[in-house]
Amino acid sequence: MTAFLPPLSGSAQDETAELRPRFDANGLIAAIAQDAVTGEVLMLAWMNAEALQKTIETGRATYWSRSRGEIWVKGETSGHTQEVTEIRVDCDQDAVLLKVRQTGGACHTHRESCFYRRVDGAALSFPGEAD
Amino acid sequence: MTAFLPPLSGSAQDETAELRPRFDANGLIAAIAQDAVTGEVLMLAWMNAEALQKTIETGRATYWSRSRGEIWVKGETSGHTQEVTEIRVDCDQDAVLLKVRQTGGACHTHRESCFYRRVDGAALSFPGEAD
Repeated sequence: MTAFLPPLSGSAQDETAELRPRFDANGLIAAIAQDAVTGEVLMLAWMNAEALQKTIETGRATYWSRSRGEIWVKGETSGHTQEVTEIRVDCDQDAVLLKVRQTGGACHTHRESCFYRRVDGAALSFPGEAD
Repeated sequence: MTAFLPPLSGSAQDETAELRPRFDANGLIAAIAQDAVTGEVLMLAWMNAEALQKTIETGRATYWSRSRGEIWVKGETSGHTQEVTEIRVDCDQDAVLLKVRQTGGACHTHRESCFYRRVDGAALSFPGEAD
């Protein structure tokens, strides 16, 4: 089963060489997926302990779907899988960064990245998309 | 004051050309900061409505500090500011991506990025740092 070590206090958490993920009150940690080749940020999703453990073990990005309330192996239904080439964790270990080889679009709208709109004041534009 | 339009339902939220941020139960939205020059992902932080509005208006990355419970103009005390060159929002508008020109280290540990440790099973390594 998934038994991670607990977080440490203060700067010890920043400097430890042990994985000690800090899950939030809902038992989740934020996960950013970045294209390993282009560096493009593809999406932000969430992992519970099981999803993080599976991602580490299988090398296939696995999240927790907050809307469906279930483990979500990315691409299992769409075929748009993410092969994880590297996992990074941030200073206080409440976020992970996945470098991935993305097959197909990362976004459920079939776009390459979920961040396809630019904020211009209160308006959004769609760079790179035809009118 | 900060009065954003409310989120829309379903795919309308994905396709709208209006900024309609989806704040969570705590009134927060996730914000990823990415180096505009190198593409390196620097940090993940949080914004409330005021922080998002200030970031848009000032072009200077402004977050909500969950630990201190206050607005946090990045670099105000450290000098490690983030000049925002572009803001992106994701499909359901519950996350933003800031492209920034980072002065100094983005991390409070003075490292360039908060994601300075690589996950290798249950262990972490510090790529690029001397033993």
